[in-house]
Amino acid sequence: MSAPLALQQIPPDVFSAGDYEAHARRALDANAWAYFSSHAGDGLTLRANRAAWDGLALLPRVLRPVQGLGTACTLLGREWPSPLLVAPMALQRLAHPDGELATAVAASAQGAGMVVSCEASLLLEDVAAPVRGNAGRGPLWFQLHFLPDRGAMLELVRRAEAAGYEALVVTVDAAVRAARGAEQRAGFRLPPGIARVNLPPQGPAPSDLRGLLSQAPGWDDLGWLRGQTRLPLVLKGVLHPQDACEAAALGVDAIVVSNHGGRTLDGVPATAVMLPRVADALGGRLPLLVDGGIRHGTDVLKALALGARAVLVGRPVLWALATAGAAGVAHVLRLLHDELEIVMARCGCSAPDQAGPGLLVPAPPPFPPNPNGDMT
Amino acid sequence: MSAPLALQQIPPDVFSAGDYEAHARRALDANAWAYFSSHAGDGLTLRANRAAWDGLALLPRVLRPVQGLGTACTLLGREWPSPLLVAPMALQRLAHPDGELATAVAASAQGAGMVVSCEASLLLEDVAAPVRGNAGRGPLWFQLHFLPDRGAMLELVRRAEAAGYEALVVTVDAAVRAARGAEQRAGFRLPPGIARVNLPPQGPAPSDLRGLLSQAPGWDDLGWLRGQTRLPLVLKGVLHPQDACEAAALGVDAIVVSNHGGRTLDGVPATAVMLPRVADALGGRLPLLVDGGIRHGTDVLKALALGARAVLVGRPVLWALATAGAAGVAHVLRLLHDELEIVMARCGCSAPDQAGPGLLVPAPPPFPPNPNGDMT
Amino acid sequence: MSAPLALQQIPPDVFSAGDYEAHARRALDANAWAYFSSHAGDGLTLRANRAAWDGLALLPRVLRPVQGLGTACTLLGREWPSPLLVAPMALQRLAHPDGELATAVAASAQGAGMVVSCEASLLLEDVAAPVRGNAGRGPLWFQLHFLPDRGAMLELVRRAEAAGYEALVVTVDAAVRAARGAEQRAGFRLPPGIARVNLPPQGPAPSDLRGLLSQAPGWDDLGWLRGQTRLPLVLKGVLHPQDACEAAALGVDAIVVSNHGGRTLDGVPATAVMLPRVADALGGRLPLLVDGGIRHGTDVLKALALGARAVLVGRPVLWALATAGAAGVAHVLRLLHDELEIVMARCGCSAPDQAGPGLLVPAPPPFPPNPNGDMT
Amino acid sequence: MSAPLALQQIPPDVFSAGDYEAHARRALDANAWAYFSSHAGDGLTLRANRAAWDGLALLPRVLRPVQGLGTACTLLGREWPSPLLVAPMALQRLAHPDGELATAVAASAQGAGMVVSCEASLLLEDVAAPVRGNAGRGPLWFQLHFLPDRGAMLELVRRAEAAGYEALVVTVDAAVRAARGAEQRAGFRLPPGIARVNLPPQGPAPSDLRGLLSQAPGWDDLGWLRGQTRLPLVLKGVLHPQDACEAAALGVDAIVVSNHGGRTLDGVPATAVMLPRVADALGGRLPLLVDGGIRHGTDVLKALALGARAVLVGRPVLWALATAGAAGVAHVLRLLHDELEIVMARCGCSAPDQAGPGLLVPAPPPFPPNPNGDMT
Repeated sequence: MSAPLALQQIPPDVFSAGDYEAHARRALDANAWAYFSSHAGDGLTLRANRAAWDGLALLPRVLRPVQGLGTACTLLGREWPSPLLVAPMALQRLAHPDGELATAVAASAQGAGMVVSCEASLLLEDVAAPVRGNAGRGPLWFQLHFLPDRGAMLELVRRAEAAGYEALVVTVDAAVRAARGAEQRAGFRLPPGIARVNLPPQGPAPSDLRGLLSQAPGWDDLGWLRGQTRLPLVLKGVLHPQDACEAAALGVDAIVVSNHGGRTLDGVPATAVMLPRVADALGGRLPLLVDGGIRHGTDVLKALALGARAVLVGRPVLWALATAGAAGVAHVLRLLHDELEIVMARCGCSAPDQAGPGLLVPAPPPFPPNPNGDMT
Repeated sequence: MSAPLALQQIPPDVFSAGDYEAHARRALDANAWAYFSSHAGDGLTLRANRAAWDGLALLPRVLRPVQGLGTACTLLGREWPSPLLVAPMALQRLAHPDGELATAVAASAQGAGMVVSCEASLLLEDVAAPVRGNAGRGPLWFQLHFLPDRGAMLELVRRAEAAGYEALVVTVDAAVRAARGAEQRAGFRLPPGIARVNLPPQGPAPSDLRGLLSQAPGWDDLGWLRGQTRLPLVLKGVLHPQDACEAAALGVDAIVVSNHGGRTLDGVPATAVMLPRVADALGGRLPLLVDGGIRHGTDVLKALALGARAVLVGRPVLWALATAGAAGVAHVLRLLHDELEIVMARCGCSAPDQAGPGLLVPAPPPFPPNPNGDMT
Repeated sequence: MSAPLALQQIPPDVFSAGDYEAHARRALDANAWAYFSSHAGDGLTLRANRAAWDGLALLPRVLRPVQGLGTACTLLGREWPSPLLVAPMALQRLAHPDGELATAVAASAQGAGMVVSCEASLLLEDVAAPVRGNAGRGPLWFQLHFLPDRGAMLELVRRAEAAGYEALVVTVDAAVRAARGAEQRAGFRLPPGIARVNLPPQGPAPSDLRGLLSQAPGWDDLGWLRGQTRLPLVLKGVLHPQDACEAAALGVDAIVVSNHGGRTLDGVPATAVMLPRVADALGGRLPLLVDGGIRHGTDVLKALALGARAVLVGRPVLWALATAGAAGVAHVLRLLHDELEIVMARCGCSAPDQAGPGLLVPAPPPFPPNPNGDMT
Repeated sequence: MSAPLALQQIPPDVFSAGDYEAHARRALDANAWAYFSSHAGDGLTLRANRAAWDGLALLPRVLRPVQGLGTACTLLGREWPSPLLVAPMALQRLAHPDGELATAVAASAQGAGMVVSCEASLLLEDVAAPVRGNAGRGPLWFQLHFLPDRGAMLELVRRAEAAGYEALVVTVDAAVRAARGAEQRAGFRLPPGIARVNLPPQGPAPSDLRGLLSQAPGWDDLGWLRGQTRLPLVLKGVLHPQDACEAAALGVDAIVVSNHGGRTLDGVPATAVMLPRVADALGGRLPLLVDGGIRHGTDVLKALALGARAVLVGRPVLWALATAGAAGVAHVLRLLHDELEIVMARCGCSAPDQAGPGLLVPAPPPFPPNPNGDMT
């Protein structure tokens, strides 16, 4: 992978991460747009994720200059420039020819972390190589789920270790999901030339739940994986406080409170609702990350205030990638980072670990809105 | 009734029960659509039913494989494959020429129960005959309400017994309702060739409330019916916890918490609101079923978690029947069943009787929404 | 006033009181529509009135036949057929040439009460005469407010006494209101031939608040009025529990909890919110009536359950009057009455005085709605 | 500045402050409209400000004539005719050629206060001169923020003292804000001939947060300013109760609870939410003012009831200025004042300092709204 990354312009009307969405919708064909924008069921959880962040208000302070303000964040024993990571997202070449490479290079340049999906459309080695040695980059993690063939899975782990990935993010909320998920609803098909190049050729997926369940991993499988690698393990997809405690007992190193962005099961709680309950149950035993609906620096600070050490950003990165390749990704991460610094400064918070529940005020319920403008 | 059932295609864009609604609207003429879609008053209760399920969030577990997962459900002393039943709905030949027969055969094929309405458009014997002996079918129940002529009513009971129905579902929330109900608002008229063929020819209905009230049944009438048949009695239309207790004392065998899908009285609570209160009052004395707004497997699991043993599905079945006859009904029940299995698996729940309130998280109120997209 | 009332058809698509609104909008010119539909400020209170009734759910009972069901209602020492009264509304000839006469005759025919406004467009004697002697009619009350000229006011009282009115309804929430109220916003002007024929010719109204305040009545003025007439006094426009207690101490005979339908001051509470608090403070010392947003029989029963003895219905009566004259008014009152009987029967309530808070269930807040249908 | 102010007509359809918005949108070019209507982020805080006022209901009294009713308000040791002040707003010549002068003259004529922004487009001396000596005017205050060059700042203070301003309003919630704020999103540019004429020529603003933070003021800077002038200091932009207490300890004379109208940081609480908490923390040590979303006299009384001594009105004044110059500003302030008097009269409140929490009733959450009008 030695071709240079595309040099692209940032649209002049993008001032916030969410502004990239409309651009991406225009840039992508219907097939790719359907894949990235899809959600489970009626989208209750997708909307609940956003609504939960918006339902919290931050309480600023005044006249508290925070000259030493910084966003440095300690994760898995190492300090990183920023609490922002790119969430693992599959098949990024659907969004842009430069795919995961553009995302990784841009994240690295912005000091943000990169979680490469095992469903990436580029070889995990090719994604890691150009960024691994960068000074000032963020964490470089590899995401995987349990493969039916444990040997193939171990091979993937070894490749990730060899390529320099610093942790394994194990996704555990997608093993069992609707046989006809969101992608199929949208008629999604992989276009020629784009594939999950890191995974072994898959036999036909089990056509019924019985088959899926027989392959579904359990805590003992996680224990097995724990014994197979020295890389830290990050468990992604936890919502229930007891699951978080079980993970801590089993030697997991961090947890991502996540509902998969509302893509795999609808009607589950917003991550901002469960994050403080998980934090409460863990009592600091494990660092927490969170994803789902992060669109503003304010959302990031709210997440930190609720107990997260860092956040994963998903769709906005893809929208930016689709819009302007690596430049877009760098830009959207920079926007989020700058917004975070500003809101930290406004809240008198000079470092992420100073954020706590005292920053937050619940928003009261409003008076009945008037949907018609005028109603007689 | 020996004509074969119509063989029809499932529309390729149906992936969820609710997707059938738009198809049914196109398939039905205005008269039939009005009949099936109508609701009492302003539709507050109709919407409240849906909103109440959506207002509950399910809390998934991870890494809990549930290999033995099954949906078997015990009702009235017998185990059935599934906690899904088709709600009693009148005049199904308005929706499709195959009418109740298509519904019953499809439900049987999917292991779901069938509650045949006494207002069916086919003879109750003709509906029961082809499914009664099917292995793997669900419960086969007959719904009736109190007829002014108790002799005619007993005759109906005897026919149901003889035809092999396994329980009588006595609807008690429609005896008194608006003289000009939803059907009349929509100008509904029975088309030629479609009739309530199981009921005796009706004299003119009482034109005023006095007349209706003089015919309205009471608890003693239920006691009388209790003494007339050995079939289990299921009381449908209960919302008040005290009524549930009264029913238990009287020897009723099960209760359906129902508001008639918002069709007979507007402004009454959502069934998901009253279900846990009824369950609490009964303390397990009677099995509970619930209906009203069930559209997803998640809704079914939420109902089980709130104390229901099984759920009745109404409009979606009719939509599917109108769209694709028996194939549609089988498909919509299969969708709900598969979704239920998946969400059970995701919540670490291997059998319906494992569901409880611990699965649920209330959804917090959101920040004021922005109806205009941008508001200055 | 001896001309016969117009004979008009009820539109065939009216099945609920609210259905008359669209007909009235078509029947009225913009000037009259503006007058009747106007509201103070942003309409917060107008909408809050409706939302508060909708926010309460009624809990039906089953198998409780209520053969003796009746709506008889005792007010001011006399029993009436119904707890429904027509609210005092000015200038009804703006809505229909038959004006207040049509309304009074129709109300009488339906057993509903009639409160004739001192701003009526027909002579109060002409409105009372044809209905005063009717068997089965409801209460016949006269509404007035304090006139700057107390002599002219007393003359009005004497005329009302002589004409057979059975109580005086004293409106106390409109003495001070926006100098440019809702009517002026809509550019309202009295058309030729329509006037407030019962009131003395008015000098120019005070142009500033100082002038209005100097004429504003106080409790002592009410005491004065109390001493001037043997007619019962009904105080209309009370929201504050302490005002209700003060009225009771002063010898008032009944209270109408009202915010003037949101017409005179915006941002005040819904009447359904204040009614139970007023009832609680009074502890039964005075009978309560309520108005504001009553559109259904369910709303009437909710009002009774919250402590009202009867309800006043405003805009729907005017809509019906504008649509079909006396026939419309009779029809809309009949609809409300029949709906009330039905919902009473469904709730196991055989008389208005059996209604209490046990009939009500608060509606829980819903999950965030999806305003766009689909949101990615 | 001796040119006469423009004589302009008030549009005949303006009856409430908010009615000016549509007129202003037509009167202003896109550039100026963008500047005045812009908001931070998604506008959550902008909407929350309005929703919080609307979410409170006022409880009127009856038969309590308040002949001595007046709006006189004591601020900083002096009595003023009204608790209304014009909020500091920059660059008012963007809205109208007469700019701040029109606003000041109109405010003075209405007895309202005027807070002249240090970013005014006219010389602060020219704005103060024509109004300083007016009998019956409101407070004349000068707003400023900390300038990087403290000498230039002191010079500004001295000019304000010399020009007759009676207090300094120190804005502390805008020192650090998004490098690309709302104006840049809208592509705002200062048109020729309009400038911040009171400020020293600015060097290039710091391009990064580090630069901004190094210039950001702290409590010690406020202490320094406190020592530099005998003018009372009003701290504007406080939301946190602890900041208010700190300000009191430091000798500040009053506080404006403000979130800058949602312009500098999104996702912070509505001012109506924080006002009572700040009041509670201060326990009367300092007088409070509040701004953000005041559009009605009812909003003003709600603010007084929650603990404010006076309110600042922003956008509506600008809308009126853009629409009709000084006449518009006078009119909008008169509307608000008259509405305030009327609602005070209705609530039995004869002076601002009689307002308290007893006037308020929280609005209950409504039943789920029906966004579609009809939903089946």
